[in-house]
Amino acid sequence: MAAKIFRVNMSDLSTSIEEVPAAWAGHGGRGLTSTIVAAEVPPTCHPLGVNNKLVFASGLLSGTPAANSGRLSCGAKSPLTGTIKESNSGGSSAQLLAKCGCKALIIEGQPKDDAWYSLAVTPEGVTITKEAEVVGMGNFAALEILDQRLSAKQGIIIIGTAGEMKMRSANISVKDPDGNLRSGGRGGLGAVMGSKRVKFISIDPKDGKVEIADMDKFRVANKAFAKSLIDHPVSQALGTYGTNVLVNIINESGGLPTRNFTKGQFDGHEQISGETMHDLIQERGGKVKHNCHAGCVIQCSQIYNDVKNKYKTSGFEYESIWALGADCEIDNLDQIAEADHLLDDIGIDSIETAVAIGVAMEAGVLEFGDGEGLLRILTEEVAKGTGLGRIIGGGAGDVGRAYGVTRVPVVKNQAIPAYDPRAIKGMGITYATSTQGADHTMGYTIATNILGVGGSLDPLSKEGQVELSRNLQIATAAIDSTGMCLFIAFAALDDATCLPALIDLLNACYGIELTGDDVTNLGKSILKTEHAFNLAAGFTNQDDRLPDFFSVEPLPPHNVVWDFSGEEIDTFWNF
Amino acid sequence: MAAKIFRVNMSDLSTSIEEVPAAWAGHGGRGLTSTIVAAEVPPTCHPLGVNNKLVFASGLLSGTPAANSGRLSCGAKSPLTGTIKESNSGGSSAQLLAKCGCKALIIEGQPKDDAWYSLAVTPEGVTITKEAEVVGMGNFAALEILDQRLSAKQGIIIIGTAGEMKMRSANISVKDPDGNLRSGGRGGLGAVMGSKRVKFISIDPKDGKVEIADMDKFRVANKAFAKSLIDHPVSQALGTYGTNVLVNIINESGGLPTRNFTKGQFDGHEQISGETMHDLIQERGGKVKHNCHAGCVIQCSQIYNDVKNKYKTSGFEYESIWALGADCEIDNLDQIAEADHLLDDIGIDSIETAVAIGVAMEAGVLEFGDGEGLLRILTEEVAKGTGLGRIIGGGAGDVGRAYGVTRVPVVKNQAIPAYDPRAIKGMGITYATSTQGADHTMGYTIATNILGVGGSLDPLSKEGQVELSRNLQIATAAIDSTGMCLFIAFAALDDATCLPALIDLLNACYGIELTGDDVTNLGKSILKTEHAFNLAAGFTNQDDRLPDFFSVEPLPPHNVVWDFSGEEIDTFWNF
Repeated sequence: MAAKIFRVNMSDLSTSIEEVPAAWAGHGGRGLTSTIVAAEVPPTCHPLGVNNKLVFASGLLSGTPAANSGRLSCGAKSPLTGTIKESNSGGSSAQLLAKCGCKALIIEGQPKDDAWYSLAVTPEGVTITKEAEVVGMGNFAALEILDQRLSAKQGIIIIGTAGEMKMRSANISVKDPDGNLRSGGRGGLGAVMGSKRVKFISIDPKDGKVEIADMDKFRVANKAFAKSLIDHPVSQALGTYGTNVLVNIINESGGLPTRNFTKGQFDGHEQISGETMHDLIQERGGKVKHNCHAGCVIQCSQIYNDVKNKYKTSGFEYESIWALGADCEIDNLDQIAEADHLLDDIGIDSIETAVAIGVAMEAGVLEFGDGEGLLRILTEEVAKGTGLGRIIGGGAGDVGRAYGVTRVPVVKNQAIPAYDPRAIKGMGITYATSTQGADHTMGYTIATNILGVGGSLDPLSKEGQVELSRNLQIATAAIDSTGMCLFIAFAALDDATCLPALIDLLNACYGIELTGDDVTNLGKSILKTEHAFNLAAGFTNQDDRLPDFFSVEPLPPHNVVWDFSGEEIDTFWNF
Repeated sequence: MAAKIFRVNMSDLSTSIEEVPAAWAGHGGRGLTSTIVAAEVPPTCHPLGVNNKLVFASGLLSGTPAANSGRLSCGAKSPLTGTIKESNSGGSSAQLLAKCGCKALIIEGQPKDDAWYSLAVTPEGVTITKEAEVVGMGNFAALEILDQRLSAKQGIIIIGTAGEMKMRSANISVKDPDGNLRSGGRGGLGAVMGSKRVKFISIDPKDGKVEIADMDKFRVANKAFAKSLIDHPVSQALGTYGTNVLVNIINESGGLPTRNFTKGQFDGHEQISGETMHDLIQERGGKVKHNCHAGCVIQCSQIYNDVKNKYKTSGFEYESIWALGADCEIDNLDQIAEADHLLDDIGIDSIETAVAIGVAMEAGVLEFGDGEGLLRILTEEVAKGTGLGRIIGGGAGDVGRAYGVTRVPVVKNQAIPAYDPRAIKGMGITYATSTQGADHTMGYTIATNILGVGGSLDPLSKEGQVELSRNLQIATAAIDSTGMCLFIAFAALDDATCLPALIDLLNACYGIELTGDDVTNLGKSILKTEHAFNLAAGFTNQDDRLPDFFSVEPLPPHNVVWDFSGEEIDTFWNF
């Protein structure tokens, strides 16, 4: 039975199951969420109003045994950026949703009362139920209760108190196979879920399965695909040190934004590095290697225990550690882990919130390096929704506006993550041109600028960066549609067997005959759909710019500035 | 001696006096500030950064004996709206600046240190001095000290603590002839002055005078002009009840936005009306009629005393009383007067701040009608710059963003004032299309929609509203360039002798031969200059729209919605 569209209308509390329109059939993941948002959401609507829609879609290969195919896409008009938005995460929900026969779950409207609700998804459709018990709870307490109430195997998609308070950096979390959380972090989609008054969504596929057209061909392709992933050296580094392997690498490059983007190297980098983390994890009986969804062969996650050898956090990512660490000049990894845990519990984007606190540090709200102060702000201000907490929860741009700070590292109001665009220029092009505000995952030029994957391109030179970012953004849009983790890109860029194996997986699954060109064209068309939405929402090429300060403040140690003209940036869209 | 451009560079603390470029010579007031900002400020710069410039300009007739010619224009890129901005006010500074031979004062750059400065303007130029004593003080305490330090006749332009804190609703206040304050309220220009670290500007013309080419002709024209102003019935109502005469009138029309724009009539309108205020003022020994600058013949200001017959506030305007009153459902005029006084002392826009508090009331921060709570928020939060105070000080849009409220009455992030666009549709066109965000003074269609001035046009019908707003916006841009108070427009619309007399004043003053067409063309060219700046800053016609809620929430008692299409609004620019 072909997968269907499951639709929930929170205005009249009705649900329906619909056939997939022909125009949506070839889409999954980000391609599908963006296609649906572009088709059904008025571009100029208020992101927290009745006309926005929240769309969840598993990838084209989610729910199959394909390696690394368990990413869940969530899309809407973003309350943080005002652009179209897709944020994806691991966890078990993408696979379970696919097994329910749900190609996309569309949540629209808003309740007329002040009640909260939960949604239960099964192969029969969606049930809406009033919810009170876990409302007002942090994610971990809520998850504990839900694990008792529901069978442990069910998928859970949930918002924390930040989402309930409609903070514009609120994220959406997804339960992982170990009962911990993964988050679709960027762009405040948790606030959209909060505006629909949906606290959580449970997913129970019962005995549902995803059909595969040609299982023999699929198995052969999957074996080749998985081998290609496992063999790549970056995959191996990720499995050993996690993404946090990057702290020392990016520090060495001079592009590790430090002290609210005033320096490119952090004196405390060793203390917060992947290598230090690896040793601490081993000392404390954690796990250095761990998967965020079933079938992942890279396993970049880890279990980080505290000093008493008790679980503290997992999916402890480089970008969060950078933001809480170097950007706030905090060099205590346990404080950073505690903050990461609190952010997961509150349900708020760790990158946006930590960069916001870096800006607040510049404003004098607290001192750089004050890790205890940062934890206090998270627990006493953000979690409680005080005035200051609301400002921080609104993201880095809001902090800049509230305190009159001009050094505010955002594009389209979304915080720039862990790679300084002055010293790693390809990332600057990605931040400027991404359809979703500053986001490293949209076109990760670090691969070629720093890691020597897919060739090599001097990060300090302007030459070739627009083309690099464009090619990666196109590829990323396609990968985000398959349900694949973006980290397959390293193997795909270097190993000639990887991408054909992925295409074989798609063809075997659906009984179709996609070519490499089809996949590239898919990526291009997704970008164009997203860009058209933004233009209709009132964005112009003036929004595809980095903040002033990058052009006038040289970044040590290379003492480089951002030196792309607007015209040069705008050539990105020549495709 | 022809007036000059006085320029102050706060980066290197240098000053200069420059000849007026030919392209600027025919401009004054708003026309000059907008021309200079458009010529010298990069449209995409950060409004609080080193590249923005703050420009003060007296009008073309300021400093002459022409009736009602004492308005001071201040321009910059606005930190609240991101658009070009002109805000004007009464007080004595426009006239004194003109007598210094200063056509415009341009303040650019930013100090490299954390010191505060004052500027002293005389006919010899500008002196920059470090200032410490009055920094951190509210406007009234600072003014008291400055009155002791400087001769009482000097003009003072000053920011309060809101401007020091760079709150985006901070205003710039100007001392009036009685030593009280008038404010250029909208658009946060006080934050720009704060970003330049200028606490105040003193103006001492010594024996400077403004030359008049043909004094005989000027006297004749001025007599006719003043008579036309004095004779108009709206002038007379303004002199008796102040602008607050409008509470009952707009309430009767059903367009008095009440309880954060959910109703068009306020049950407590009588308690806060101009008529009630008039009687209270008389009971308490205040003044019902009072001028904000020398030479005003309309005298819409008043001296409002408290219950102990002690001075509380002056220039107690309808829009402030509406915002603090009906919009927050507060029906106690003494609480409103106390709030008005506090807002003047903090140096923050009364419209923006009160509308922001209305949105905060909707968010549940305090109850509608809670006047004591409102006063507490002003003294304990806004004045002290707490987190909540910073949110409120950032304006209505910031409150909406911080609390996830969707009913946020702003255009281009500036709060919509006292006339509901659903029930008074001409004002909706002005709010949507104004180059400066929602601003009633940009094209005051109340004249024709409600007051029967310049003809009559049904406020509930769409017919003719775009043309009405366009004609008034063009006329307003021209009037704002003369230094004239906008209230000359009532006589100009109804009395055929008024506008020719104004043109005679200009011709007599400068020895030129302007025609009525020249004045209309001046207004058009100013609007086009401002619009071009905004387009270059990244604004599009999608920004010329009212918030969603006006189109879907009918406003009682007429139960009307905002029903202009984007295409209809965009015809505004067909000239």
